[in-house]
Amino acid sequence: MINVGIVGVSGYSGMTALELLLKHSQVRVTYVSANNTIGKITDIWPQFLGRINLTCDKFNLNKAVKLCDLIFLAVPHTISMEITPFLLKTGKKVIDLSGDYRLETARTYKKWYGVAHKDSHHLNKAVYGLPELYREDIKKSHFIANPGCYPTAAILALAPLTAIHSELIQSIIIDAKSGVSGSGRKAKVTLNFSELNENFMAYKVLHHQHVPEIELYLSKISREPIVIDFVPHLLPVNRGILETIYIRLNDKISFSEIHKVYQRFYKIEPFVRVLPQGQQPELKNVVRTNYCDIGFTLSVDKQLLVITSAIDNLVKGAAGQAVQNMNIMKGFKEEEGLL
Amino acid sequence: MINVGIVGVSGYSGMTALELLLKHSQVRVTYVSANNTIGKITDIWPQFLGRINLTCDKFNLNKAVKLCDLIFLAVPHTISMEITPFLLKTGKKVIDLSGDYRLETARTYKKWYGVAHKDSHHLNKAVYGLPELYREDIKKSHFIANPGCYPTAAILALAPLTAIHSELIQSIIIDAKSGVSGSGRKAKVTLNFSELNENFMAYKVLHHQHVPEIELYLSKISREPIVIDFVPHLLPVNRGILETIYIRLNDKISFSEIHKVYQRFYKIEPFVRVLPQGQQPELKNVVRTNYCDIGFTLSVDKQLLVITSAIDNLVKGAAGQAVQNMNIMKGFKEEEGLL
Amino acid sequence: MINVGIVGVSGYSGMTALELLLKHSQVRVTYVSANNTIGKITDIWPQFLGRINLTCDKFNLNKAVKLCDLIFLAVPHTISMEITPFLLKTGKKVIDLSGDYRLETARTYKKWYGVAHKDSHHLNKAVYGLPELYREDIKKSHFIANPGCYPTAAILALAPLTAIHSELIQSIIIDAKSGVSGSGRKAKVTLNFSELNENFMAYKVLHHQHVPEIELYLSKISREPIVIDFVPHLLPVNRGILETIYIRLNDKISFSEIHKVYQRFYKIEPFVRVLPQGQQPELKNVVRTNYCDIGFTLSVDKQLLVITSAIDNLVKGAAGQAVQNMNIMKGFKEEEGLL
Amino acid sequence: MINVGIVGVSGYSGMTALELLLKHSQVRVTYVSANNTIGKITDIWPQFLGRINLTCDKFNLNKAVKLCDLIFLAVPHTISMEITPFLLKTGKKVIDLSGDYRLETARTYKKWYGVAHKDSHHLNKAVYGLPELYREDIKKSHFIANPGCYPTAAILALAPLTAIHSELIQSIIIDAKSGVSGSGRKAKVTLNFSELNENFMAYKVLHHQHVPEIELYLSKISREPIVIDFVPHLLPVNRGILETIYIRLNDKISFSEIHKVYQRFYKIEPFVRVLPQGQQPELKNVVRTNYCDIGFTLSVDKQLLVITSAIDNLVKGAAGQAVQNMNIMKGFKEEEGLL
Repeated sequence: MINVGIVGVSGYSGMTALELLLKHSQVRVTYVSANNTIGKITDIWPQFLGRINLTCDKFNLNKAVKLCDLIFLAVPHTISMEITPFLLKTGKKVIDLSGDYRLETARTYKKWYGVAHKDSHHLNKAVYGLPELYREDIKKSHFIANPGCYPTAAILALAPLTAIHSELIQSIIIDAKSGVSGSGRKAKVTLNFSELNENFMAYKVLHHQHVPEIELYLSKISREPIVIDFVPHLLPVNRGILETIYIRLNDKISFSEIHKVYQRFYKIEPFVRVLPQGQQPELKNVVRTNYCDIGFTLSVDKQLLVITSAIDNLVKGAAGQAVQNMNIMKGFKEEEGLL
Repeated sequence: MINVGIVGVSGYSGMTALELLLKHSQVRVTYVSANNTIGKITDIWPQFLGRINLTCDKFNLNKAVKLCDLIFLAVPHTISMEITPFLLKTGKKVIDLSGDYRLETARTYKKWYGVAHKDSHHLNKAVYGLPELYREDIKKSHFIANPGCYPTAAILALAPLTAIHSELIQSIIIDAKSGVSGSGRKAKVTLNFSELNENFMAYKVLHHQHVPEIELYLSKISREPIVIDFVPHLLPVNRGILETIYIRLNDKISFSEIHKVYQRFYKIEPFVRVLPQGQQPELKNVVRTNYCDIGFTLSVDKQLLVITSAIDNLVKGAAGQAVQNMNIMKGFKEEEGLL
Repeated sequence: MINVGIVGVSGYSGMTALELLLKHSQVRVTYVSANNTIGKITDIWPQFLGRINLTCDKFNLNKAVKLCDLIFLAVPHTISMEITPFLLKTGKKVIDLSGDYRLETARTYKKWYGVAHKDSHHLNKAVYGLPELYREDIKKSHFIANPGCYPTAAILALAPLTAIHSELIQSIIIDAKSGVSGSGRKAKVTLNFSELNENFMAYKVLHHQHVPEIELYLSKISREPIVIDFVPHLLPVNRGILETIYIRLNDKISFSEIHKVYQRFYKIEPFVRVLPQGQQPELKNVVRTNYCDIGFTLSVDKQLLVITSAIDNLVKGAAGQAVQNMNIMKGFKEEEGLL
Repeated sequence: MINVGIVGVSGYSGMTALELLLKHSQVRVTYVSANNTIGKITDIWPQFLGRINLTCDKFNLNKAVKLCDLIFLAVPHTISMEITPFLLKTGKKVIDLSGDYRLETARTYKKWYGVAHKDSHHLNKAVYGLPELYREDIKKSHFIANPGCYPTAAILALAPLTAIHSELIQSIIIDAKSGVSGSGRKAKVTLNFSELNENFMAYKVLHHQHVPEIELYLSKISREPIVIDFVPHLLPVNRGILETIYIRLNDKISFSEIHKVYQRFYKIEPFVRVLPQGQQPELKNVVRTNYCDIGFTLSVDKQLLVITSAIDNLVKGAAGQAVQNMNIMKGFKEEEGLL
């Protein structure tokens, strides 16, 4: 039984973390904080009425450290790097759901996030919390950079091909679609119901800040530079990401070969489902689960591979993956609280 | 051909007014303004690209007066009463879509809107712009208080009964449901897509500011005080209001009698459709039209009458009704630009 | 550990039952059947891929009886009464989610469901499975008529008042709104996305088949006949019911008195949340939970009480309540699998 | 003033055609038919109550010919080719909204639509009704194959590049997203609200029947074979198509050059809007209009061009385009009834 704190509980990832942790048999949530909305946690999220009695306050390092063994940082990027160094100094385990520690250099961070990194010292101290790739490192780690939502769906969809057949890859285009909760919980007219309902559009075309994260970890897997073209879109649904990935191949490959590569790669994985030929992932099959579903189609000339990949952006794309990481770090059953 | 200005074009009512006026054969839109979003109107509303070339500026009385014969005020309440007196002084025709001039006393205004009225002088100078009741007055008027969205659906549903058989009415309960555009275009977390999509709730239970407006005009029609109980709800759709109205009757009445009363009352009305027995109004039949659809059900004991009434909150509940009023004031065909 | 079967697993209630039972620590799902869709359960519901391996066949009594200790009937009304007598004869425990055994006489059934009852013998052998009212009977029962979705929200909202202060009740109007899954999973144009999305309407005004169920159990509680007027509406959301209930009172009562009555009545209930003054239930707080949230508003003259009540129609309104009943019948922890 | 008939008025395209034609100053709708739903048109589409009084019957050739000068066929593919030859024989003008006459050979039709073509005689008698490409032919034609919805958005997005710089094109990938009305109005569980709301998925990956139509007309423009890879997805909105098109370039080109090519190509077009740099098409800007909005992004290395293109699938993608074609054929103002 461990004591866990959630910093940033008023956001959607923080709320989802709380929801999952309340069902976790080995966890007590002992501390929650948020910057703008102070008060009873059930005033912020009335769905937890009768299930939890905590009060949410402005982040207080001493209190957090005193009350918790492990802390989830479900804060926006730039906020995490103001808190993380102090938490790490106390020796507490930290799982950071923001983008602050996923890249390797302050320069790349500056380029894509548009602000200077304030804690470059810890920039490559974090283990990238994608269990399907880094389970062993996660076990030993006390500081996890939890992957972004788009990168989780993209990297899981591309890792086996990149690892085993990177010579085949000529080019990769990722057409990504995300539910609105991916944009966070901010008071902005552009996030209003009336602006997004019955609407659909591309945004940050070819220059979303998740691009370098995807390229970095795919390149590590393949041991040579992998470049992607990435276009995100905003879907009028609450939750879920579906990515349609187009891989132009240097050489022909058969469907069954591709399929076998993926089945082997994910054989023991509890949360990746490689779909049979002809079956497409749908948001409704993964939403509110920690699964990533992956489907495949090969063009008639066998030179274009289309991979579709679906997750819940708040679960496998954020809080669920964080819980999975915590389970691994603490030696709990990896599926605990997630099935 | 007249020149029309829209003050508050960055809101949903203002946008809808612009959309309708661009299709109107007798109107040139010559002036648009908004307080927070200055610039090309097509930067605010890209759907008008290629259709209009105006620039939107902060409200400028002299410019508005110089460029327009008639002005639509599509501003929030409290803003209208700061502008209206000056516009009226210039002799321009004004159609006010806000709630500022719909009630008759500053006291009631204060009670329900929570702020003092700053222009009580004009409070009962406005004609209430519900053409089905006040067409003759509208013809002669130069200042219209355009009805609220909930009141339009409620009063049209109740006017015939109140006018012809008010002795039958024991009590009236209005259970109202409105699409999200009725809440305006503000940067508020509570209006975010992720908060309202797949959600539904009652709000301002029994104390919405439209209550006194409904009671006032129903009482005028019946020549005795009419009291209502009113509960609004927020529907996860962009547009449309449906009100389910429960009238407890003092005496039995037959369905065909009720139906006849309504058919006669609205016989020549271009925008009220009295539905046949067994047919229910649906939002999709009225959305993006200026129609109000009204359906009826009588309980088996003939002592409870259920009237359902549906409109588009932005059209018949706001900008469409304003255009209808303009048509009447200016002697245009009443349906012009609305069918 | 018991073996449970789900008959009618291809419907939304059946699917929800399966989802809940897969998380239940004391249950093994050993049998699933459906009439129209035979094959692997994961072909019908791909979200269960990797979580269950059962094959769904056409209902087979012998197989069901052999494999299960307890059976959920998640079939449409009229189908249940063709199966139930045979299941009961074998001594198996049955939880019927259809409307077939909720009313007490074949005559009322015929009147409201429009077909003759084929198993009137068992009509009043079933215990009405609303734990908040009949927990002790449920404990001893082997045959449960699981309440309808609308009745669950209505009866929970009205039971305390009806039980303690039925003398106050002059009349009851229930304005109910349900998500689309409440209409079942049928191939009908009227259930198409394009017909219901961005739409809203009343249906079966004053003559929905859940009326007699609500009246029957409220009358039992109050020991005198309770009559309701009931108007259901179809909400463009997947899940959830919100009912706005108008109770005209014979005498004044204070808010705190009312509130106290409800708090006491539901003091030990794990799944009913009596909200504090000023707080309204919202679908998003109850969807995918077994909670019923109840809020109150009293008119200024204290003669109209407005109660709002919200549940998930597929959980507390169907499968969740069925699991709760099973837990009670089998002596499991009542919340098991539901929190 | 001409008399127009709509065959297939019970579908979404037929309904949209009726809606547009009722606002058209030069048209009288004199005949409507549907196969499955016979009766008053306002029983099928209650939104037309008070606006039209026609009765809808099963298709009757003689009646249609007698009552109409021009006929819209808004029927599913395979139905059109059973009717068209007879209509053409009578000399009436025909605008076919189905896919039956868009391809040039019976062989291709068989391959992609899966059925034999029954009227190959007229297969290449139709003019492809994309006014931006074939305006002069349309003027002289009496038989129009109205383009498909996906092809309209795709061809308009690609025509200028294909016409002027086809040497630049290395490969084209089209990631298309369509609202649900594009799937037609059929009683199918897979089209139910509960299956599609909050959901999203790819379908017919790389083998949608609109592929050969897009390739055929792009190849004609470029005078060399153009091949595309096409993946459609189903969006949980009623109306609208957005296509994100990835063009890998053989050589670098500047943004301003590309932009100039498009601006020139569409200079006089009333319904194509070439957006300025940095602006993305959104469904809400084109829905319920006949516009096609086109936006551009060039990768940093200038070797990948991303074009996004948006239309309303029922207007510019079907009935609006049909009205535009009719306007051209009959010498009406091209925008009549469409602005």
